[in-house]
Amino acid sequence: MENKERKVPEVVIRRLPRYYRYLDELDKSGKTRISSNALSEKMGVTASQIRQDFNYFGGFGQQGYGYNVKYLLNEIEDIFGISKGYKTIIVGAGHLGHALANYAGIQKRGFKIIGIFDNDEKKIGTLCNNIEILGMDELERFVVDNKVDIAMLALPKSAIEEVADRLVDCGIKGLWNFAYVELKTKKPIPVENVHLTDSLMTLSFKINQKMKN
Amino acid sequence: MENKERKVPEVVIRRLPRYYRYLDELDKSGKTRISSNALSEKMGVTASQIRQDFNYFGGFGQQGYGYNVKYLLNEIEDIFGISKGYKTIIVGAGHLGHALANYAGIQKRGFKIIGIFDNDEKKIGTLCNNIEILGMDELERFVVDNKVDIAMLALPKSAIEEVADRLVDCGIKGLWNFAYVELKTKKPIPVENVHLTDSLMTLSFKINQKMKN
Repeated sequence: MENKERKVPEVVIRRLPRYYRYLDELDKSGKTRISSNALSEKMGVTASQIRQDFNYFGGFGQQGYGYNVKYLLNEIEDIFGISKGYKTIIVGAGHLGHALANYAGIQKRGFKIIGIFDNDEKKIGTLCNNIEILGMDELERFVVDNKVDIAMLALPKSAIEEVADRLVDCGIKGLWNFAYVELKTKKPIPVENVHLTDSLMTLSFKINQKMKN
Repeated sequence: MENKERKVPEVVIRRLPRYYRYLDELDKSGKTRISSNALSEKMGVTASQIRQDFNYFGGFGQQGYGYNVKYLLNEIEDIFGISKGYKTIIVGAGHLGHALANYAGIQKRGFKIIGIFDNDEKKIGTLCNNIEILGMDELERFVVDNKVDIAMLALPKSAIEEVADRLVDCGIKGLWNFAYVELKTKKPIPVENVHLTDSLMTLSFKINQKMKN
C-alpha cells in the first residue's frame, strides 16, 4: 500500500465512499467488471480523475481491461479499515440516537453498535434495537473494557464538549458528531461533524435553479 | 446574476454550504471582512479555487481588500433561495422524523417545517415539536393547499417510492431522502439522498490512517 507515503487529499477521501456505494450496487447485481469510462460516467468524474484518485492507493486495476468490482470493493474496505469491523457506541438515546441505532446502512458497512448511553433514568435499562441503554456513569469503563473505536454523539450541543473530552480521555479513536456545532477535542483525534443542512442547502440550490429556468 | 448562463459544477455547489457555515460563524463573532487567503486557509481550498468558485456567481467581492462577510452571506442565501424561506414537511414521524423536527440547524437555515405525516393511528393528532402529526391521507391536500416546497422523507425503504410518487404528482419541488436507497422519481425533480455512512466512512479512513502511522 502506498497510502503511508502520500497524503491523500480530503476531497479524494470523500469520493471513495461514493465509488464504494456504486460498486456495491454493481456487485449485488452480479457485475464483475466495470470500465473506467462507465465508472466515470456514473460518478460524474472524468476517467482520468478516477485513475488519479485510485493512484493514491496503488492503482486498483488495469486500464483498458477495466476494473474488477470485487477487488475494488475489497481494496476500499481495506483503506477504510471496514474489514476490521469498528466497534461503536451511541451517546444519547433520544430520537436521533434511536434513529442511528436503527439505521441499516451503518451495520451494513460493518460498524457494530455495541452500546448506547443516556443519563435519563427512565431510559436506562430499556432496550434500543436490542441493545440495553446504559447510564452515563458507565461510559468510561465500557469504552475501555470493550476497546470501543468510535462514539456517535447524538447529544444536545450543550453536552457535546464535556462528553467528547471524557471519551478522548479514555482512548476513543474517533467521534461522529451530529450536534450543530464544529466540535474540537482537547487532544487531536479524528472527528467528523455531520452537517445535515449542507445537503438540504444543495437541494434548495437545485430547486432554486429550476424555478429560475 | 450569472448563474443562468453557466452550469455550476456539483462540487462547487457542495462547497458553498461550507463557506456559508464558516461565514455565518464569522458574522456572529462580529467580523465584517475576510481576506481570500484567510478564507482559503480555513476552508482547505486554494485562494484561486475560492475565486473560481465565486466567479460562477458573479465574483462576490474585491480581491486584496478581502470579502465583505455580510455581503457574501446574503449572496449565498440568494443563490440557495434561502431568503425565500422554503416550506417543508416531514413524512414519517418515527425517531428520525422526530429528530429532524427538532434539529436546530434546519430552522436556523430558514427552512420552515409546517407539517408532519404518519400512517400510525397512535401518532396522528399528537404533537411533534409543536406541530400536529397528520394522517397520510391528508398529504396531497396539505401539499397543494400550503404550496409545500420540500418533503423530508424519514420513511422505511419499502415505502419511499410510493410516497415520492404521490408527492411528485401533487407538485412537490424537491425531496430530501434519508432512506438507505438511491431514490429515483418518475418525473425528474431535485432529489438529495442523504448518505450518512459516507461521513462515517471518512471518519474510519482517518482513524485507520492514524493507526498505521
